[in-house]
Amino acid sequence: MLDKIDLAKKIGKDEYKKLEEELVPRIQLAQRRCKALGIPVMIVFEGWGASGKGTQIGRLIQPLDPRGFKVLTVKSPNEEEYMRPFMWRFWTRTPANGRIHIFDKSWYERALLEHKEHAVSEITAFENQLASSGYLIIKIFLHISKKEQKKRFEKLEADPATKWRVAPHDWEQNKKYKDWVDDYDKLLIGTDKDFAPWTVVEATDSNYAAAKILDTVTKAMEDAADKKDAENAAKETLKEAAAKAAEEKAASSEETKEAAEEKTESTRDRRFMNGVLAGVDLTMSLTREEYKEKRKKLQDRLGYLHNEMYKYRIPVVLGFEGWDAGGKGGAIKRITEAIDSRGYEVCPTASPNDIERAHNYLWRFWDKVPKAGHLAIFDRTWYGRVMVERIEGFCTEEEWKRAYAEINQMEASWTAAGCIVIKFWLHIDKDEQERRFMERMNTPEKQWKITDEDWRNRAKWDIYEECVDDMVVKTSTPKAPWILVSGNDKYYARIQVLETVVEAIEKRLEEEKKKELLEKAKEED
Amino acid sequence: MLDKIDLAKKIGKDEYKKLEEELVPRIQLAQRRCKALGIPVMIVFEGWGASGKGTQIGRLIQPLDPRGFKVLTVKSPNEEEYMRPFMWRFWTRTPANGRIHIFDKSWYERALLEHKEHAVSEITAFENQLASSGYLIIKIFLHISKKEQKKRFEKLEADPATKWRVAPHDWEQNKKYKDWVDDYDKLLIGTDKDFAPWTVVEATDSNYAAAKILDTVTKAMEDAADKKDAENAAKETLKEAAAKAAEEKAASSEETKEAAEEKTESTRDRRFMNGVLAGVDLTMSLTREEYKEKRKKLQDRLGYLHNEMYKYRIPVVLGFEGWDAGGKGGAIKRITEAIDSRGYEVCPTASPNDIERAHNYLWRFWDKVPKAGHLAIFDRTWYGRVMVERIEGFCTEEEWKRAYAEINQMEASWTAAGCIVIKFWLHIDKDEQERRFMERMNTPEKQWKITDEDWRNRAKWDIYEECVDDMVVKTSTPKAPWILVSGNDKYYARIQVLETVVEAIEKRLEEEKKKELLEKAKEED
Repeated sequence: MLDKIDLAKKIGKDEYKKLEEELVPRIQLAQRRCKALGIPVMIVFEGWGASGKGTQIGRLIQPLDPRGFKVLTVKSPNEEEYMRPFMWRFWTRTPANGRIHIFDKSWYERALLEHKEHAVSEITAFENQLASSGYLIIKIFLHISKKEQKKRFEKLEADPATKWRVAPHDWEQNKKYKDWVDDYDKLLIGTDKDFAPWTVVEATDSNYAAAKILDTVTKAMEDAADKKDAENAAKETLKEAAAKAAEEKAASSEETKEAAEEKTESTRDRRFMNGVLAGVDLTMSLTREEYKEKRKKLQDRLGYLHNEMYKYRIPVVLGFEGWDAGGKGGAIKRITEAIDSRGYEVCPTASPNDIERAHNYLWRFWDKVPKAGHLAIFDRTWYGRVMVERIEGFCTEEEWKRAYAEINQMEASWTAAGCIVIKFWLHIDKDEQERRFMERMNTPEKQWKITDEDWRNRAKWDIYEECVDDMVVKTSTPKAPWILVSGNDKYYARIQVLETVVEAIEKRLEEEKKKELLEKAKEED
Repeated sequence: MLDKIDLAKKIGKDEYKKLEEELVPRIQLAQRRCKALGIPVMIVFEGWGASGKGTQIGRLIQPLDPRGFKVLTVKSPNEEEYMRPFMWRFWTRTPANGRIHIFDKSWYERALLEHKEHAVSEITAFENQLASSGYLIIKIFLHISKKEQKKRFEKLEADPATKWRVAPHDWEQNKKYKDWVDDYDKLLIGTDKDFAPWTVVEATDSNYAAAKILDTVTKAMEDAADKKDAENAAKETLKEAAAKAAEEKAASSEETKEAAEEKTESTRDRRFMNGVLAGVDLTMSLTREEYKEKRKKLQDRLGYLHNEMYKYRIPVVLGFEGWDAGGKGGAIKRITEAIDSRGYEVCPTASPNDIERAHNYLWRFWDKVPKAGHLAIFDRTWYGRVMVERIEGFCTEEEWKRAYAEINQMEASWTAAGCIVIKFWLHIDKDEQERRFMERMNTPEKQWKITDEDWRNRAKWDIYEECVDDMVVKTSTPKAPWILVSGNDKYYARIQVLETVVEAIEKRLEEEKKKELLEKAKEED
């Protein structure tokens, strides 16, 4: 999750002012609506040391009616708290209906310290219970780089007035930044639920962070109020439908509902997208000679590794997604031509057939999970749920929002059983796609590859980009990562894919062999 | 859970026949409705060795249309299965819409073998995902006693034709029956969710078990079909409300919905209740002399233990529930008069005030959890959610069904933090209650204790009994047990309560002291 975030983002002062002008009246209205509707709101701030939690909370509360919110600073438990079950101090501090509680650090501190599955399950139960009884939970994680953190600590230490704010454990975090990334990542992914999702905020530039937070909180509160309005209206409709007045009531409720749906479907400001695709350097390329040489080496190596993989009974799942004409087919071919045909299966994913449609959407992918020692290559994948199905309305908003956690769960089941899982996004830019489409249209033997649907999808480039952006951040996990492939140059893309696969298998074989040696040593003891 | 089940239940042949006559046409209709509505159904059979899973499945499928169901026997994974992630063989065997899959053993086998939190969380995710996409999941656990199991194994072994069916691991289970009860209990409670609840079936008498299973499955399928009908009707209503025809449509859908609600609210056949209250022996009594002597001893001991508890920082939560005039007040008084008034708090629970009502229903109980070394006595408790709130309609069916897991979660948070948690149900019979009510009315100084509401509640005795029955089975956990107090004789009841509390604290202190010694020994090393 965190490694996909572009930390260089910033925003100019004027742009910030303009945005503030638009959002401040909206958040004020949203606060009044949530109060009137009795929606309790919890806003959680977590993040790196010196990432600016205090500052950002200070900025967020500026426009809010002070009679309606409260900021709670969570430190180590005091004696009273220490003597009670851990969640006591959070349960007792849940806001009443219609009020906002902002937490400067929260119940997540403990999960980080204990690294225990138990803490995560207790937290999830807590949030789930509150959310299902109508609480709005907004969780914000402020993210900065190791370098930025170091710079901030040094600046704080240089000033005698702020020197005390940097403690030895802060420097400890900076030193072990990489380990902390892993821990944060595990925690964020494990607790990113549809009923209480995380928003990772790029916090290098304070204005950018403030704007994204204001935007996130405003929209979450608006959505919650819209949803409640629609629910109330629907309830009313059902109740009064039997009575004479049904007609008008229902019409208006339908409108409210449609308006609400439209609202939540609306594309968010592009400036607050994670920008994972925008971050891919598309200028990478290789000459034909470089390509041929590298390919030969990698394919030979892969052929060898494929046997080893079989010997060590390691199953491998490779998922390919990408823009139309992004080069999925070519990349897959460069893998399969290197290996024994009895050891792999390519699984193309089209729209589900009748039997597949009659099952849960993940059923057909579970069905094709490879056995130990085998390789399954998916040409398009289960991620259709959060791309085409989301965009075309083939599933409900509730369904695709739930899908991120469901997919993470499925891939975690696979990796826990020993599977290597890698997902590739074949990335090209819009111009390159047009060039390739035109080439396909003008080359008789390639014409079958291009259909009207490709052009229709191309028209939805921006909304697809938004979906991919969400998807990559929410489902790139340490054990089942997304690899964003620089695809404008086909040679470069193919080599990047081959290299990634070879490295992943090699790394895993090393681990297996180490394990084997250890076991042997134990036996000999 | 399992220790609250009365295994002596049986049913006569004629009664069984009569029941079958009523239920068979209903399950057949329910099957047709589920098929037409596209509801996939999964029925899981788990239970002790020789509890009769095969027989019961055979009986259940008799009335079903064979074109619509399939029985899947789950053995140890075969080679194909062994080479894939554990859940693969279950995912791939989920039924298509409108079909029924019956599992003879299931994904629960693994959770028992591995005893791992991971397996339970994977299972819960699996069931949750299926349920939220519309699957009906019915889980049946066949329960028999150690003695009954032994008898059945011996009978099977005596017949050469069935001798092979008893394996050494079966006898192993019988020998370690008590340990298995603990394991089953933990598993059943951990996976008893509103979206996939367990039904424990008393399987000593095959007819009784068959009838209860037929009844459970029939009603679950009827409820699922009703719910889907109501949803479809509500959807229709909202959709068409804008059109002219809205009026009639809505009225009929409202009727469907009301009918559905009425159906699910209806009292279940009393013959299939768990009967935990019916199992309490209410003839227990003590003479005044016995009582005085025991009370003195126990109260002295409790006074001492209360100090030790404080020294060892053990928090204690005692919850009191019971029939009106069941003797809660008297039992609480015999505890408090024995101990230092600075170390306990009695928390009476009335209907929630405005502030409490503006929070989650568990908030006010979290607020009162005692600190380490202290004792909190709740006169009526958080269980109001699944009794008075359920009965009076103060919360929705969805809410009280979810509450069992939420309450178990809360108590588990407390016990994980070191709390002793005990819940008492002060049980008396209806005659005894009437006697006490009349006495109160006729004794001037006791008249304040009796109100019209008491008489109103008394009129709902049967439905209360049903709720208590569900509640005790679903929330009696090894670490936070329900104690059913034999309350017709006040002396006996008070001594039972005092004894339970003393024993629980003593047991815990022993553990703490053992721990202390071990730590000391370690330090000295």
